[in-house]
Amino acid sequence: MYIENITSPREVKQLSSEQLNLLAGEIRQALLAKLSTHGGHIGPNLGMVEATIALHYVFDSPKDKIVYDVSHQSYVHKILTGRNEAFLVPGKYDDVSGYTNPQESEHDFFTIGHTSTSVSLACGLAKGRDLKGGNENIIAVIGDGSLSGGEAYEGLSNAAEMGTNLIIVVNDNEMSIAENHGGLYQNLKTLRETDGKAACNFFRALGLEYVYVGAGNDIDSLIAAFASVKDTLKPIVVHIHTEKGKGYGPAETNKEHFHWGMPFDLATGSPKTGFDNEEDYCDLTGRFLLEEMRKDPRVVAITSGTPAVMGFTPELRKQAGRQFVDVGIAEEHAVALASGIAANGGRPVYGVYSTFIQRCYDQLSQDLCINNNPAVIPVFLGTIAGMNDVTHLGLFDIPLISNIPNMVYLAPTCKEEYFAMLGWGIRQTEHPVAIRVPGAMVVESGETFDTDYSELNRYKITQAGETVAILALGAFYTLGKALAAKLEAEQGIHATVINPRYITGLDEQMLEALKADHRLVVTLEDGVLDGGFGEKIARYYGSSAMRVLNYGARKEFVDRYAVEDLMKANRLTDVQMIEDIMNVLK
Amino acid sequence: MYIENITSPREVKQLSSEQLNLLAGEIRQALLAKLSTHGGHIGPNLGMVEATIALHYVFDSPKDKIVYDVSHQSYVHKILTGRNEAFLVPGKYDDVSGYTNPQESEHDFFTIGHTSTSVSLACGLAKGRDLKGGNENIIAVIGDGSLSGGEAYEGLSNAAEMGTNLIIVVNDNEMSIAENHGGLYQNLKTLRETDGKAACNFFRALGLEYVYVGAGNDIDSLIAAFASVKDTLKPIVVHIHTEKGKGYGPAETNKEHFHWGMPFDLATGSPKTGFDNEEDYCDLTGRFLLEEMRKDPRVVAITSGTPAVMGFTPELRKQAGRQFVDVGIAEEHAVALASGIAANGGRPVYGVYSTFIQRCYDQLSQDLCINNNPAVIPVFLGTIAGMNDVTHLGLFDIPLISNIPNMVYLAPTCKEEYFAMLGWGIRQTEHPVAIRVPGAMVVESGETFDTDYSELNRYKITQAGETVAILALGAFYTLGKALAAKLEAEQGIHATVINPRYITGLDEQMLEALKADHRLVVTLEDGVLDGGFGEKIARYYGSSAMRVLNYGARKEFVDRYAVEDLMKANRLTDVQMIEDIMNVLK
Repeated sequence: MYIENITSPREVKQLSSEQLNLLAGEIRQALLAKLSTHGGHIGPNLGMVEATIALHYVFDSPKDKIVYDVSHQSYVHKILTGRNEAFLVPGKYDDVSGYTNPQESEHDFFTIGHTSTSVSLACGLAKGRDLKGGNENIIAVIGDGSLSGGEAYEGLSNAAEMGTNLIIVVNDNEMSIAENHGGLYQNLKTLRETDGKAACNFFRALGLEYVYVGAGNDIDSLIAAFASVKDTLKPIVVHIHTEKGKGYGPAETNKEHFHWGMPFDLATGSPKTGFDNEEDYCDLTGRFLLEEMRKDPRVVAITSGTPAVMGFTPELRKQAGRQFVDVGIAEEHAVALASGIAANGGRPVYGVYSTFIQRCYDQLSQDLCINNNPAVIPVFLGTIAGMNDVTHLGLFDIPLISNIPNMVYLAPTCKEEYFAMLGWGIRQTEHPVAIRVPGAMVVESGETFDTDYSELNRYKITQAGETVAILALGAFYTLGKALAAKLEAEQGIHATVINPRYITGLDEQMLEALKADHRLVVTLEDGVLDGGFGEKIARYYGSSAMRVLNYGARKEFVDRYAVEDLMKANRLTDVQMIEDIMNVLK
Repeated sequence: MYIENITSPREVKQLSSEQLNLLAGEIRQALLAKLSTHGGHIGPNLGMVEATIALHYVFDSPKDKIVYDVSHQSYVHKILTGRNEAFLVPGKYDDVSGYTNPQESEHDFFTIGHTSTSVSLACGLAKGRDLKGGNENIIAVIGDGSLSGGEAYEGLSNAAEMGTNLIIVVNDNEMSIAENHGGLYQNLKTLRETDGKAACNFFRALGLEYVYVGAGNDIDSLIAAFASVKDTLKPIVVHIHTEKGKGYGPAETNKEHFHWGMPFDLATGSPKTGFDNEEDYCDLTGRFLLEEMRKDPRVVAITSGTPAVMGFTPELRKQAGRQFVDVGIAEEHAVALASGIAANGGRPVYGVYSTFIQRCYDQLSQDLCINNNPAVIPVFLGTIAGMNDVTHLGLFDIPLISNIPNMVYLAPTCKEEYFAMLGWGIRQTEHPVAIRVPGAMVVESGETFDTDYSELNRYKITQAGETVAILALGAFYTLGKALAAKLEAEQGIHATVINPRYITGLDEQMLEALKADHRLVVTLEDGVLDGGFGEKIARYYGSSAMRVLNYGARKEFVDRYAVEDLMKANRLTDVQMIEDIMNVLK
């Protein structure tokens, strides 16, 4: 076994061609062993085994600096840079994150998790090098799916101007998470079909030099190509054609499914847990929208590279036809597109994860909200209980979205209320409406909810009480109900419980009325406190005698946390909250 | 005179070729007469006279829909669509805004002010049309300077996939605001030089059809080209080569200066007011940075299409050499570039207007702050007293920036404090630092300030008092001082005055100490209240007896307001504030 002896790229350089190929096989085995029991990004890493070996064979990391876009395909890089145990020893699987991480290794230069950033970051490393008078190679590794994002294009266009050493490896596996979208992909196809010789070349049009490697899973070809561009004095693109999921039949056949996955049976590729079969907001949303589409030909669903966010499987996409659009990883375009569709009488619904809506603040503000167009945006996994990698937190969408004028940001508390609000959002023509899908797992209340939300900023009292009022927003409504029950049982306080429903405005009439028989208002929100909902309540009551306690997450970048720990650290357990409440009331 | 009789595009269609050319001359005269006394976007509109006439001659607005990118070049469109008086009658000059505006005319489809959005918005109009079964033409007009922004690329790449009617007019005048940046511009040059025939073609590489018009200021050529693509069934680019500033000598010669301007002498082109000669933050910053560059070769200034924001005139750019980078209109790239430079030992300073930093929230969060790289970002015109077009407000940067973990956002109160903070920002290596340049006009205090801000979140008491504490942030510090003086003079209250300095954190020790002898804390901030600084103070004191009054701007999209009116509407005059304060204290 070679893989066990690789403690740094030095050992890679000492292997023969034959040995490197054996190493590739061992790495693939290790990846499959780990990912089938642990879950993770499968296809992207299987496709990059040979290219990563060749990069480390040719270049001298960490002096030469490799930046992986998204960095979900950096597992092989980790194996070759002193972190092989995290892929060989089951007890150490969680010693490394799923992305590059400078705290893990001097071979990692950035913590990265969002797409399309590598070329710009690499331009920065190159500029820093030039200012200091260094001479190392700077390499960006970007997958073709990431080329659809605007930041990648800005980086490529500016790279050309730098006129200095910069190597951009374009890993073309003909796929994004799902199939690729955008006119660019026709050009990549043409380039593949002409062995890189087509005169019309996207990269050359941006002023970049260009090399094509058709055999992107052949170590010798890759080594030859990388060696030929090492120490280049001009920015150059090395376009390599790889196969996503390479070497594992099920992943080669079903590339979209094996982009990322939970544990699976290695022999068959079937999921190990029943997780995939449980009801989730994604599938429910897809089915709901398909019904809406059948009723109204103007309804159109939009996603940006992640059709699964709204349950649009290949089968559902086929059924929706022209009423479904995936724009590729291009969130800015998605929002502007939705605004334009709404301006011309369509009924667009753009589904997006909380962590990615950050990529289009300006489009939400300028393209959408200034124009007050009635697009609908369900925001998924905006919750402490969602993705917990530091680069994929769902904690920041409330401050991001709710402080934009004209936006109506709704916080349903359960599945039933979510679909009531989504239905209204599609029917109404007055406002841009975002809807914060409640929590990570489906909450069922069995209750019936209003179907009309056009009278804005009207909160609902669901339990009338006195002394303490609990404003429990969205997914934290359940927490608020439980807190009220415990307050009653333990302290004899019959609290008022309120479902605020609207994140973007205050129900001043209700807030004012609470002053009569309440001394304390408690707010609960499933996200960061800073710039959020609770602070607005605190501002409202600032000049009065009403006391306010705001609960939510502290402003910090947390990484791979346990939900329970984070709740406790933010005093979000009912024991802690009751302690605080009694302290204020005493 | 033809211009006076144009009440709609119908009249344009009835003119002969000769008459259209006479009309062009009249329009140019009207533009120069208005802009030389009123100010506005000069070069962009002079260059688009013929193309706009040809568009309205060929297409049937408003059934056919024209979307202007940035829309600062839509003056001719306004003249031809019933708004000619706003360009002919001095008393009516302010009847129209400087951008397209659906509230003004059915010929305008979006309120637009930021760049690179037109193709995506037009894609939306086209998709809306197709869902409804319409057949109108959708036209996006985008200048070459706007092609550098990622959203434009996302739009172009997705346009190709639509396979439906969409006409993209690329107005190539070889300029952004300053000269163009990015590899793409070499390709535009090649296309111009080959009369559009070069095989390597950026637009074709994105899957779009393509037509070239070399004579972009010749009405007949333009009419022929537009007529040939009218009712196209596929997305097509019409690349027209125009001259920025066409027909006015000084604007043809000095294109950067005449992009936008205050009133000028028509005969010479010289500015009418002394405004250009007054000291401003831009020039001061440029000179300061040039000094820093001389001391340290690692210091590099970055701008994104607006070198003037930090005073980098062509002369200063020459002096800075490789220590100055303008990336074109590509804010996302600028932030990632700065992060990369900082990661490799450089000292990047990215200067940007408040309204445009909105375009890179995700890059601030992911590329910069998660990685905690020490880039410095001066934010200009983040103030109520800055640009007052609805699309260019400087009111939202505090909620946008200050709720991102790891960011240190500083609020200097005057010129001297700003440069003390900027100097520290460049020297330190621990934090991403943003600095909110105080106000629109230079505030001079003549005072000396700390040179070290590494102990975070330490506010400064500048006047010790009791009962009322005024936390006056940044440019509103002056307002806070005046309020304190008036409180003392009129009410005999000797208030404490505090310069918070740090927007991104609370000085809990000081806030706690205030409880001893203060009953009310007043916060003042020069921006929107929602998600801002004051709300965090209100949250802090929520569970205590301390009363809090937050002052700032309401969350709303205001347009072409008078500063005085907006201050009054937000109770920001000292009379109103004292009334509120006495109400709370009574």
